[in-house]
Amino acid sequence: MPSEIPAAGAALGAVFRHIDAEKDDFLRRVMDYVRHPSISAQNVGITEVARLLVGMLREIGLEAETLPTDGHPIVLGRWQKKPGAPTVLLYGHYDVQPPDPLEAWLSPPFEPTIRDGRIYARGIGDNKGQHFAQLLAIESHLKVHGELPCNVIFLLEGEEEVGSPHIADFVAAHRDRLKADFVVTADGPIHESGTPTMTYGVRGIASFELRVKHASRDVHSGNFGGVVPNPIWTLVQLLATMKDASGEITIDGLHDAIVPPTELELAAAARLPLDLDATKAKLGLTRLDLPPGRPYYDRLMFHPTLTINGLHGGYGGPGMKTVLPCEAFAKCDIRLVEAMTVEDVLGKVEAHVRRYAPEVEFVPFGGMLPSRVPMASPYGALIRSAIELAQGRSPLEYPSMGGSLPDYVFTKILGVPAFVVPYANADEANHAPNENMKIDCFHNGIRTGAALLDRVGAIRG
Amino acid sequence: MPSEIPAAGAALGAVFRHIDAEKDDFLRRVMDYVRHPSISAQNVGITEVARLLVGMLREIGLEAETLPTDGHPIVLGRWQKKPGAPTVLLYGHYDVQPPDPLEAWLSPPFEPTIRDGRIYARGIGDNKGQHFAQLLAIESHLKVHGELPCNVIFLLEGEEEVGSPHIADFVAAHRDRLKADFVVTADGPIHESGTPTMTYGVRGIASFELRVKHASRDVHSGNFGGVVPNPIWTLVQLLATMKDASGEITIDGLHDAIVPPTELELAAAARLPLDLDATKAKLGLTRLDLPPGRPYYDRLMFHPTLTINGLHGGYGGPGMKTVLPCEAFAKCDIRLVEAMTVEDVLGKVEAHVRRYAPEVEFVPFGGMLPSRVPMASPYGALIRSAIELAQGRSPLEYPSMGGSLPDYVFTKILGVPAFVVPYANADEANHAPNENMKIDCFHNGIRTGAALLDRVGAIRG
Repeated sequence: MPSEIPAAGAALGAVFRHIDAEKDDFLRRVMDYVRHPSISAQNVGITEVARLLVGMLREIGLEAETLPTDGHPIVLGRWQKKPGAPTVLLYGHYDVQPPDPLEAWLSPPFEPTIRDGRIYARGIGDNKGQHFAQLLAIESHLKVHGELPCNVIFLLEGEEEVGSPHIADFVAAHRDRLKADFVVTADGPIHESGTPTMTYGVRGIASFELRVKHASRDVHSGNFGGVVPNPIWTLVQLLATMKDASGEITIDGLHDAIVPPTELELAAAARLPLDLDATKAKLGLTRLDLPPGRPYYDRLMFHPTLTINGLHGGYGGPGMKTVLPCEAFAKCDIRLVEAMTVEDVLGKVEAHVRRYAPEVEFVPFGGMLPSRVPMASPYGALIRSAIELAQGRSPLEYPSMGGSLPDYVFTKILGVPAFVVPYANADEANHAPNENMKIDCFHNGIRTGAALLDRVGAIRG
Repeated sequence: MPSEIPAAGAALGAVFRHIDAEKDDFLRRVMDYVRHPSISAQNVGITEVARLLVGMLREIGLEAETLPTDGHPIVLGRWQKKPGAPTVLLYGHYDVQPPDPLEAWLSPPFEPTIRDGRIYARGIGDNKGQHFAQLLAIESHLKVHGELPCNVIFLLEGEEEVGSPHIADFVAAHRDRLKADFVVTADGPIHESGTPTMTYGVRGIASFELRVKHASRDVHSGNFGGVVPNPIWTLVQLLATMKDASGEITIDGLHDAIVPPTELELAAAARLPLDLDATKAKLGLTRLDLPPGRPYYDRLMFHPTLTINGLHGGYGGPGMKTVLPCEAFAKCDIRLVEAMTVEDVLGKVEAHVRRYAPEVEFVPFGGMLPSRVPMASPYGALIRSAIELAQGRSPLEYPSMGGSLPDYVFTKILGVPAFVVPYANADEANHAPNENMKIDCFHNGIRTGAALLDRVGAIRG
């Protein structure tokens, strides 16, 4: 725990000058990196890129290796030559999304191209450009000073884009070699205004499917309508008991474990920029789901949601078909907030289904725990300071994201605070064609990474 | 209106003997007829079969012609040489369902084959074998006696399998040349026990679709879950206001027009055989939708139903996808009972949608009126008597079918009673591969048709 953070000195200034001077070369190097495909879903290029990363980490002066999991290997780099100094764990992922649809790309996904101040390539934003910026920040410190201000563990996963199925087991198994004071993930986008952001938490997720089969085959809606049960009606009537008209989940006990937001968190959420009209315009909406007294960020950060991801049953073609279908299914996810657990939530949904519609098959799909670091965490102040030093402006501070990342493996398995400090622009188009990263964002990322190491080194509490 | 029906005499006995003697030849001829495809949905063979029918009707001694509609032509035959005698209008349809899936047929659909006492061919049950039986009944009377006992109008539609879109306009336009005392349709199956049946009514139908689109594109369930409206939830919550847990429709005013069943109808329904366990076993069901106090036939004949034919929105593939979909739709049909109208019902559904979910687009698809002839109708007694004479057993009398046929064009446009007297076996597999008709059923159909003409001729009220 830092007691206080001294002002940045000449050491960081020299690193910043190096980073600014190498700007063009760093740009060339990140373009070389993203030229290598590493598509986890298709097992394309994973081994090659893991090996490439180990080589690069060693070249800049880290110990590095690949470690096996039951899926794709994890790349682990470390520089731990300052006994007694704090250790930051930097998390990223070297796998990328498939590039389809290829025809929508203006330049080929694995031939990085610069247009209008942006690098276009699959993975440049999500996540190669971001962890490569962290790598260059480490390199810059080592080049300029021959050492780092603090100890660093660099953890690069190869399965984030397929749901991180092995990261929790990996972290639990390697707990000892992953000892760190806190964790920073550079992933996701900054605010669309270009203001840097930092995030203290993520929502978790619990997914499940509801399946109903009544008759052994579809029947005629005239010959049997009114006497043969309809699986779509069964699902409609079950789902209607799960959420009320105001959008509140009405499953018994589901809210029991929720830790209400603190004053600090509520205040932070209230300070975030919010333009509901712009959000509606961007999504073509005439309204948002915002009952009175439950503002936008409150719903997105501090409350669970029950989303029907899909519901299908019966005829879906043109015109009408007088069928009474025999089966239907709904796929749902519940976003979890502190301190809900996947197991508890799925158990309560199952109990609700047993009670209201025992004919419905409940199929749990598992999920991911939520994570939330107190906003009073001194590491939060440290990150804020690093961003201010690197970019000359204060970040927006998000108590939580609406989405889910496996941050719980750090906060709940390692037991240390974990933060997300994104470097990419808001319109990075990750998971989409023409994924891109602004050159300025990439450059700010390297500077921010460098300032972060400096700040961690400065705390020697 | 008949005042009383005299006993059958020697005239009918001679016709029965002719029919029995010609059994093999009649079988050969119906097999020749169903060899000709006439698939309305694909416009295959329609003109050819209409022309073939006109030729056959003329050959047996009727005036016959094809009359155009805005779709496929209608074949009209007539024998009206007994001024003052009653006229029966026989309705059938010469179009058939497409034969797909072809690979499921044990013998080709348009190469009629006899196996185990059944004729297998597309259209043999629905409806060619049935109206051909009527045709042979007419021929037999003419062959044996040189005249018919009564006047006959033979109306054969070419679009029944595509929803009879032009029959109402046709009947309205040709009201004068279709003047008859009552109408008999030989279509559908008899009871599965083999007991002959007759039906006094049909339910109507009103179809519609509900469509919702909220955002202009699908969004991420984490980034927007809780704030962006979900069209599947919108449909679920709207539909949940339309029907209660006991299956009663809860749309304001929907039941207003319903004429409750008469004592005769309730008593007839209560007399029908009912084996709920067998029905459940046949359909693989563990339960039926039968709230207390609302028996099976009561629900199927005297109450409207709201069936969701299909509901689709969002992800439907394997596993999970954390999507919050932007659009969804539900297709529904409401079965109507006397004296509900399509227009009134669709208007009330639309008003309900406007009130509970104005964001939902209501798309009416039209429908068909119900039809119900009072069970005290003397023509009912006449048909019963014909069945008894032809088959030596009394029919099961259904106040109504659960399904819909365009009988309203006769009861409500022509203003005359209309009955359904099916000839096919219960397992005729109409609309399915291996459609078939028992040779005995076909033979009984010819005898029943002959007895019917005799009975009509006998009433000369």
